[in-house]
Amino acid sequence: MLKGILDYAHYLLKESVELGETVIDATCGNGNDTLFLSDLVGGEGHVLAFDIQEQAISATKQKAADLGKTNITLIRDSHANAADYIMREIGGAIFNLGYLPKSDKAIITKAESTITALEAILSYLKKDGLIVIVVYHGHEGGKTEKEAVLNYVTQLEQKEYHVMRYEFINQKNNPPFLLAVQNRK
Amino acid sequence: MLKGILDYAHYLLKESVELGETVIDATCGNGNDTLFLSDLVGGEGHVLAFDIQEQAISATKQKAADLGKTNITLIRDSHANAADYIMREIGGAIFNLGYLPKSDKAIITKAESTITALEAILSYLKKDGLIVIVVYHGHEGGKTEKEAVLNYVTQLEQKEYHVMRYEFINQKNNPPFLLAVQNRK
Repeated sequence: MLKGILDYAHYLLKESVELGETVIDATCGNGNDTLFLSDLVGGEGHVLAFDIQEQAISATKQKAADLGKTNITLIRDSHANAADYIMREIGGAIFNLGYLPKSDKAIITKAESTITALEAILSYLKKDGLIVIVVYHGHEGGKTEKEAVLNYVTQLEQKEYHVMRYEFINQKNNPPFLLAVQNRK
Repeated sequence: MLKGILDYAHYLLKESVELGETVIDATCGNGNDTLFLSDLVGGEGHVLAFDIQEQAISATKQKAADLGKTNITLIRDSHANAADYIMREIGGAIFNLGYLPKSDKAIITKAESTITALEAILSYLKKDGLIVIVVYHGHEGGKTEKEAVLNYVTQLEQKEYHVMRYEFINQKNNPPFLLAVQNRK
């Protein structure tokens, strides 16, 4: 059975992240991926969860509190500043590109900050670690970001990184697709 | 860790094929996929393995004999005639598009017969079963077949089939990519 995009994103992280590692949710949004990562790394691990929107931070904070999570740091700042916050090797990361569901569609991730964040995280990513990027691109501004991110990742050196695209190609209405970058160094 | 194209092709079939089923290797080539499928379906199952080249049939026959395989039928005919040979529901199938390695590069799979074979097998494919297609396209004639096959699968009705593409996008020299079609009906 073929995994849907979100299931596949989680599957890839589950296969590559280890207990005790520090991992990143670059777009914490509704908090689901943050909580998923929190479970993967366990009590000795740590999740750095970024979002620029108060609504996202407070929703994630509430969910984390309800579950008694103690291994999450919420950061209300752009993931473009990720390098300021990373203190050690990163076991894996996830990005959801686009806008926060049920929120202001004018507030979207943008190519420049996304690529700055990718560069920062790649420089700390463990060997064989993955950055998983779920690319929503049907909204206004989505196509521009999609093309810039694709252009960036396809130019990553083949000897240093594997870059994989996973996509359903017979669906209407610009469905999201997945990119995964694996550090080979 | 990201799976390479051939590992991922086998992974998908392993996840979806059951013991006792009939499955198809549409391009038996050097026989590796035929033997892999033979193991997946077991002694009660059956593999129909097609190839138009004597060299492929004899290589596969030898390997199957060496391993004492009794659940393989080798068919020296075009997979375009698959409908003539299929007697029951199909649990899964694999295609390797291109030419037989270490053989005559002028003998290649071609769009028209590939699509005829896909149509035949899809009509017998079990619910949730997969056809996995490994698309080699760097050889002469490869681009034409690739585009025709992509055009065919992307037009498969979204409600009836999932069509997924898995590809490494930062590699040089036209690396193969994978297509998987899942029957939802």
